[in-house]
Amino acid sequence: MKISLRNVTVIPMTGDEVIAPGEVLIEDGVITFAGRAGSAPCPFEADEVIEGEHFVVTPGFVNSHTHAAMTLFRGYADDLPLMQWLNEKIWPAESRLKPKDVYWGTLLCCLEMIRSGTTTFADMYFHMDQAARAVEEAGLRASLSRGLIGVARGADRALGESRAFIKDWHRAAGGRITTLLGPHAPYTCPPDYLKKVMRLADELGVGIHIHVAETTSEIKEINEKYGCSPAALLHRAGLFSYPVLAAHCVHLNEDDMKLLAEHRVGVAHCPESNMKLASGVAPVARMLDAGITVGLGTDGAASNNNLDMVEETRTAALLQKVHTGDPTVIPAHQALAMATRDGARALGLGEEIGTIEVGKRADLVVWEWHAPHLCPAFNVFADLVYAARASDIHTVIVDGRIIMRNREVLTLDEEKVMAEAARRARRLVGK
Amino acid sequence: MKISLRNVTVIPMTGDEVIAPGEVLIEDGVITFAGRAGSAPCPFEADEVIEGEHFVVTPGFVNSHTHAAMTLFRGYADDLPLMQWLNEKIWPAESRLKPKDVYWGTLLCCLEMIRSGTTTFADMYFHMDQAARAVEEAGLRASLSRGLIGVARGADRALGESRAFIKDWHRAAGGRITTLLGPHAPYTCPPDYLKKVMRLADELGVGIHIHVAETTSEIKEINEKYGCSPAALLHRAGLFSYPVLAAHCVHLNEDDMKLLAEHRVGVAHCPESNMKLASGVAPVARMLDAGITVGLGTDGAASNNNLDMVEETRTAALLQKVHTGDPTVIPAHQALAMATRDGARALGLGEEIGTIEVGKRADLVVWEWHAPHLCPAFNVFADLVYAARASDIHTVIVDGRIIMRNREVLTLDEEKVMAEAARRARRLVGK
Repeated sequence: MKISLRNVTVIPMTGDEVIAPGEVLIEDGVITFAGRAGSAPCPFEADEVIEGEHFVVTPGFVNSHTHAAMTLFRGYADDLPLMQWLNEKIWPAESRLKPKDVYWGTLLCCLEMIRSGTTTFADMYFHMDQAARAVEEAGLRASLSRGLIGVARGADRALGESRAFIKDWHRAAGGRITTLLGPHAPYTCPPDYLKKVMRLADELGVGIHIHVAETTSEIKEINEKYGCSPAALLHRAGLFSYPVLAAHCVHLNEDDMKLLAEHRVGVAHCPESNMKLASGVAPVARMLDAGITVGLGTDGAASNNNLDMVEETRTAALLQKVHTGDPTVIPAHQALAMATRDGARALGLGEEIGTIEVGKRADLVVWEWHAPHLCPAFNVFADLVYAARASDIHTVIVDGRIIMRNREVLTLDEEKVMAEAARRARRLVGK
Repeated sequence: MKISLRNVTVIPMTGDEVIAPGEVLIEDGVITFAGRAGSAPCPFEADEVIEGEHFVVTPGFVNSHTHAAMTLFRGYADDLPLMQWLNEKIWPAESRLKPKDVYWGTLLCCLEMIRSGTTTFADMYFHMDQAARAVEEAGLRASLSRGLIGVARGADRALGESRAFIKDWHRAAGGRITTLLGPHAPYTCPPDYLKKVMRLADELGVGIHIHVAETTSEIKEINEKYGCSPAALLHRAGLFSYPVLAAHCVHLNEDDMKLLAEHRVGVAHCPESNMKLASGVAPVARMLDAGITVGLGTDGAASNNNLDMVEETRTAALLQKVHTGDPTVIPAHQALAMATRDGARALGLGEEIGTIEVGKRADLVVWEWHAPHLCPAFNVFADLVYAARASDIHTVIVDGRIIMRNREVLTLDEEKVMAEAARRARRLVGK
């Protein structure tokens, strides 16, 4: 399959370049050319041509932290204190989850993500073989982790399930699915359990996805138990010798940031979830100054309540400005880099995706740049980050395959997914 | 013209009621029935019927503070410190503004607002007769103020222009256009000038729209000059004896809040602009506790950069949760009330619009409730505030007239407005 994007505006995100009119050529899933329109070296017989000055092409969004199947719980419980939300609402509903619920919930999540320009996501949940099947069908790229609670019954069995899942699915779906081990958090996975996780990581050669320093109560609990911060505890346990994707990182001190930078821990910043649950504001500007790779994530739809990376990118920039009191921090271009290139790096996929450059897998979003809210169009970065909407997304390409064309999702039966997911969601919450 | 909305979900915003299936009847611009479907007392021969279980009907959004024609400067200057942004970018561009630019800029703003469900807005700018013409043509409702800078040359002439504008346009366009006097801010309008504004308010019988306590530098400047806060200064000058719409109110102390509550000053909270310019976080939760009426506004598109009240409502709720550390503040229903009913009250239009109830003018938004990001649809308030998008808005009714039907704006030539506005915007910024 050969695709040509012609006479479009290309935003490669390798730097701050805007190529207009630009051209991107895709062959067998790989970007074979990206540059000025008409300057491709060889003739190219495309099977499909997407053409037009009103199209802007960016790398696909990388949603670097979510719990896909929790889309089933969107709007089920809101505006509650965290522990009440978990104890009285989310955990009881999750206890009723069957494997097929995760399949349909993940499909619903994929549908929403495709429509809002996400091409890759990092997921942590249960029944991950079902999640993987959904990702395979949706045509998305994902990094999947089976969540591990070290303090729960069945913690060792969960390690075994993780091993089986990773063996079955790592680099499956034509390479689109990768896997990570998913120890939930420092406060649910004590150092002894983390050691088992690390042995498994050695055996399987995969990295680790973990929640870190999400709330002040976590900071307090870890400090009381271990006399250090969650990041320091993980470092002490040896976790940072592995590739780590650390979600949230809301409450980090300067030493924590040094550790994360030094050990190249990737951070998944989830501003809207942190706002909605009142967890706090992550020190993103300082993390970036420290040299940490920070991607953006929506977290699950139960605490967001959407999976819209267009909006998440905007919120990340705006929140950091008001938090630091400095309107110059996280300028538009940097916010977009976090949402694409840096998210890919945080997932350990920086060599394969995240930018539009020759040799990378073709994960692209085509935006229709013609709407009142995008007029007069002075600066495409500012417009993308501060004004654009998910509904401006016209076409989505993952791994060189068009999975949404002109706002029609080609890989999934949208009506069927919504109906079945809603039916199952009602059962889960007893409605 | 008689319109019937049948078998829809009705969210009246008089309380927290959801009527499903519900019915709304509109006759000659007025809501004549709102209740359970099929329970209307009389037969009703509608000229137009909007029907379907997948429709949700809410009051239109009230954008309680913007500078409409600044939509021409969207994306022209971003990620800059406030004074550099104003001095080097916005003010030079504004100095080139001609009356017709304001007309086309306001039309562009109206187009975007209609598409995102705003039915009423409060505007402060220049060449307001041009803005009024645009509002009249767009079919929107607006409260318009000619901005007044007391310390500028021509300050007295501007008062005269305000008088003429108000005499010409107050209650024009079939009553859709109302007017306010627009002294810009305490630091640009000294007490002596405010006295002249108040005399004019007496003469004309209109209220006042003013920026208050937007930045810490304003607090500092007013305190150095007058030994008090901006709110206290305005109170001392006598301004709060008039109906006042106070934009921003980011930096208020407890005494300020008491003053605002006592004098029924309406506040226009603009979270995204305050975030983008790093002005600070308004103490909305405390204002509400103090009994102040708080509406929501986008501010101008040059500092937002869109006019999307769906998003602004979400941001208002999320920002206040993280700011207070309490996930229960500004629950979804309250956020939506601020964006509709309370905004109407802040503009002094609470008797006429802001809710769906018999006798009020019919300003309604019809949402198409069928999309992956709105599934599984457990709670319409949570979904509206935390998950919905402007693109879910299907039909918009202002003053009993359908101005957008099935996402087609009926009152304006969209292509012409975008082309002409963009052409003028490029001239203004010298591009």
